[in-house]
Amino acid sequence: MEKSNQRYFSFVDLMGLEQRYRAAFVNSLSGFKSVALIGTKDANGQTNLAIFNSFVHIGANPPYIGFISRPDSVDRHTLSNIMETGFYTINHINESIFRQAHQTSARYPKEVSEFDATHLTPEYKLGFKAPFVKESMIQMGVQFKEKMMISTNNTILVIGQINQVYFPNDCLCGDGFLDIEKAKTITCVGLDSYHKTERLARLTYAKADREVSIAQLGYIE
Amino acid sequence: MEKSNQRYFSFVDLMGLEQRYRAAFVNSLSGFKSVALIGTKDANGQTNLAIFNSFVHIGANPPYIGFISRPDSVDRHTLSNIMETGFYTINHINESIFRQAHQTSARYPKEVSEFDATHLTPEYKLGFKAPFVKESMIQMGVQFKEKMMISTNNTILVIGQINQVYFPNDCLCGDGFLDIEKAKTITCVGLDSYHKTERLARLTYAKADREVSIAQLGYIE
Repeated sequence: MEKSNQRYFSFVDLMGLEQRYRAAFVNSLSGFKSVALIGTKDANGQTNLAIFNSFVHIGANPPYIGFISRPDSVDRHTLSNIMETGFYTINHINESIFRQAHQTSARYPKEVSEFDATHLTPEYKLGFKAPFVKESMIQMGVQFKEKMMISTNNTILVIGQINQVYFPNDCLCGDGFLDIEKAKTITCVGLDSYHKTERLARLTYAKADREVSIAQLGYIE
Repeated sequence: MEKSNQRYFSFVDLMGLEQRYRAAFVNSLSGFKSVALIGTKDANGQTNLAIFNSFVHIGANPPYIGFISRPDSVDRHTLSNIMETGFYTINHINESIFRQAHQTSARYPKEVSEFDATHLTPEYKLGFKAPFVKESMIQMGVQFKEKMMISTNNTILVIGQINQVYFPNDCLCGDGFLDIEKAKTITCVGLDSYHKTERLARLTYAKADREVSIAQLGYIE
């Protein structure tokens, strides 16, 4: 790729950008992001559904997943519902529902469920206390474990334990890898750009004395 | 999509999985991830380059980016170099270099630079103290700000301030959105699966009283 048109912004340039412009730009820099719908209920049983795009793998043993939430004052109702009940669901987004998923970011009054407003279907199973999104192919039931305030700008890292996972069996590979592309999970950039994917390759475990090569996917069925 | 082949794992099922199988599975659940190369130097000037796949947007004002590092004891040399010098680079990965990028995860001795071992080119510019990856189309010079220990499993959230950004001018849109897909940035799943992307759409800002629609990209040139 030609780099002759490379452009440069310094920290001072970034701070001088108009606020929404800077938000769009800096949000693009962190790369492709996982994007999913978080389903919750408040103590009175009112459901809520919200799109988040800052999920991060925390660890596999025990299975912990994190996401970044904006401060309580800005967050719609997800974080307060999680604090009230201790449970939430994380639901992957596929091409069929990405517009509805984005629509959940609108500012609805607390008494309006985003499930109703966006015509996504709440699903309850195996006694889990928060609603899953029926149209999602990969669904997790998560139990709140820890929240950490990021003091630099009052955002919050919320960490939970994966208590339930539902997934398409034909996307599971023999080594435990789950082919989320085959399950039509999408990704996003910034605040509003949604993308499907095409696998380049799975690569072998890297060792210093050999070059990496392409690994087989090896579905179990 | 047909959901008749849906499968279920409970927390107990997950904990009962063989360790590497569980790592592959749980790492897939957090969705598509940003993946980039972190370039550092130690106090003696020895360079290091390492692939990370847990970047997260922290905030735009000021421009902060985070990544999750494994504990000091497991991390190769990136975190100790950042602590020694206070500076590092984050370099997006494109299709041309993803195999070399993956190869940096091999366990090289400290005196071997992954730049040399993988034939990626260190680049120094505007006096920044850490090496950029010349083959990367989107490069950030970052200053360490804060690290937070995640007590549940001793991983570490490292937060830095973006002091420099280099990017292709023809990927910048009029509202500040940077089209990283046009810059050939790739994404990954789990520990070893790399993917290019295809945009579905940018969507308009969601409001409660209207349905979202497709927004224009609006490149500035």
